[in-house]
Amino acid sequence: MKNAELWFTEYQSDNLSIGLRINKTIHSEVTEFQTLDIMETEQYGNLLVLDGCVMTTDKDEFVYHEMISHVPLHTHPNPKRVLVIGGGDGGAIREIIKHPSVEKAVLAEIDGRVIETSKEYFPQIASGLADPRVDVQVTDGIQYVKDHKGEFDVILVDSTDPIGPAVGLFARDFYQLVFEALTDDGLFVAQTESPFANQKLISQVNADIKSVFPQTHMYLAFIPTYPTGMWSFTMGSKKYNPLQDQQPQRVTGTKYYSSDVHKGAFALPPFVQELIKG
Amino acid sequence: MKNAELWFTEYQSDNLSIGLRINKTIHSEVTEFQTLDIMETEQYGNLLVLDGCVMTTDKDEFVYHEMISHVPLHTHPNPKRVLVIGGGDGGAIREIIKHPSVEKAVLAEIDGRVIETSKEYFPQIASGLADPRVDVQVTDGIQYVKDHKGEFDVILVDSTDPIGPAVGLFARDFYQLVFEALTDDGLFVAQTESPFANQKLISQVNADIKSVFPQTHMYLAFIPTYPTGMWSFTMGSKKYNPLQDQQPQRVTGTKYYSSDVHKGAFALPPFVQELIKG
Repeated sequence: MKNAELWFTEYQSDNLSIGLRINKTIHSEVTEFQTLDIMETEQYGNLLVLDGCVMTTDKDEFVYHEMISHVPLHTHPNPKRVLVIGGGDGGAIREIIKHPSVEKAVLAEIDGRVIETSKEYFPQIASGLADPRVDVQVTDGIQYVKDHKGEFDVILVDSTDPIGPAVGLFARDFYQLVFEALTDDGLFVAQTESPFANQKLISQVNADIKSVFPQTHMYLAFIPTYPTGMWSFTMGSKKYNPLQDQQPQRVTGTKYYSSDVHKGAFALPPFVQELIKG
Repeated sequence: MKNAELWFTEYQSDNLSIGLRINKTIHSEVTEFQTLDIMETEQYGNLLVLDGCVMTTDKDEFVYHEMISHVPLHTHPNPKRVLVIGGGDGGAIREIIKHPSVEKAVLAEIDGRVIETSKEYFPQIASGLADPRVDVQVTDGIQYVKDHKGEFDVILVDSTDPIGPAVGLFARDFYQLVFEALTDDGLFVAQTESPFANQKLISQVNADIKSVFPQTHMYLAFIPTYPTGMWSFTMGSKKYNPLQDQQPQRVTGTKYYSSDVHKGAFALPPFVQELIKG
């Protein structure tokens, strides 16, 4: 185009937006569950967008996928069976199977099109999905945990934002089901949005997880393509404490995670502590 | 306006933008040094823009101002004389004078219009400027450090981005002058941009500071209105180490800083360590 530029703009709230310059749209469809768009950006490589929200990009996906996976997996002393709910791009699975103790990793993703398009357009993110330890299930994550009581050492809730298909994954009833799907010393982590932008949600989710699990811990990571760049994850744990029981680093080649980053991520600013003190 | 919206869009690079919905522009001028705009946003309160770049907002200024001030001031055991270069909004000064040991705080800001408009439109940020311990100098910071050898325990370089009037504040010669303006056990901190967006600059600045100071340490903070949301600060120190010599917290009521956040901010992800390993 002459005298023109193509930009993807996500309106992260009524009053806030992020823009990424686009070379071209690679793929666009309406699946059974959501709109799905893949674009090639100048800054961040390929970009996956679900229902208009940035899900992941080639260049910064490592932060989210390392932090949702390696923090819980370095809290549990011997994680063998791991479940990912959502996470159809495969990034969390890729990180999970780097842990030598892991014998089985199940991906329960409701939208098979996310899995298929990720394999095609984000091959380096989806690279673990063909591993023999990985069991890919195109299914409702809520139903899946109902049907698999006491089976998993670690569960990751790698969901979209709490609109559309993921609404049920931000609810107390769901956390109770996750509790029941875990082994007696199991733990889980969910992505829980931005402490700058989603304060009510964070307070509610924290209270709900606290009402189900003996231990609740929040940690943070820098994700440039998510609203405000400050992202939270919340852990509910039956037994292990992410700081007192932190394991030596078992995986090499990480770009964001390290033992020091693990510790530092739980150092919450007072304004964030205030959100979850209830 | 009917059927219309007013947005401020900062093009943070050729390929990346952030948008803030605006109620109205409050003030706009071209000073001797730069363009200066103040707008009222929906999300972040009043917004200060210099040469088209977000400098600070009412709602998230606490992160930057607490972190540029309280980390170095809790590293030095007894900071009495402190200099801020730049920082005309007064936010760093406001935090510095919360430290009981501080006897004198000098603000050396090149653009007096930043100071005057901040007093008018950001009174809660500029609130410390009338304190009797504060000496406001409208002057070139480089000349100021040349003229004040061996005088300061702590120096903060609270500059704009390395374009326009601040170019000289990202140079080895300047760090040498800062070294000479410090006491024998002095230390300084500069804001040093984003590890996601300004990688070459960070590598260069780190190498330059290392070539002047016995100790160089980088730390990070979440700033939602700055490019990528991940912001770095670099400390050059003659004697004190920010972790080994960390002081108990001396100021109350902080919203971002805490002793744990101080420690955690130095836990750099491997991709950031890679930028400064040289």
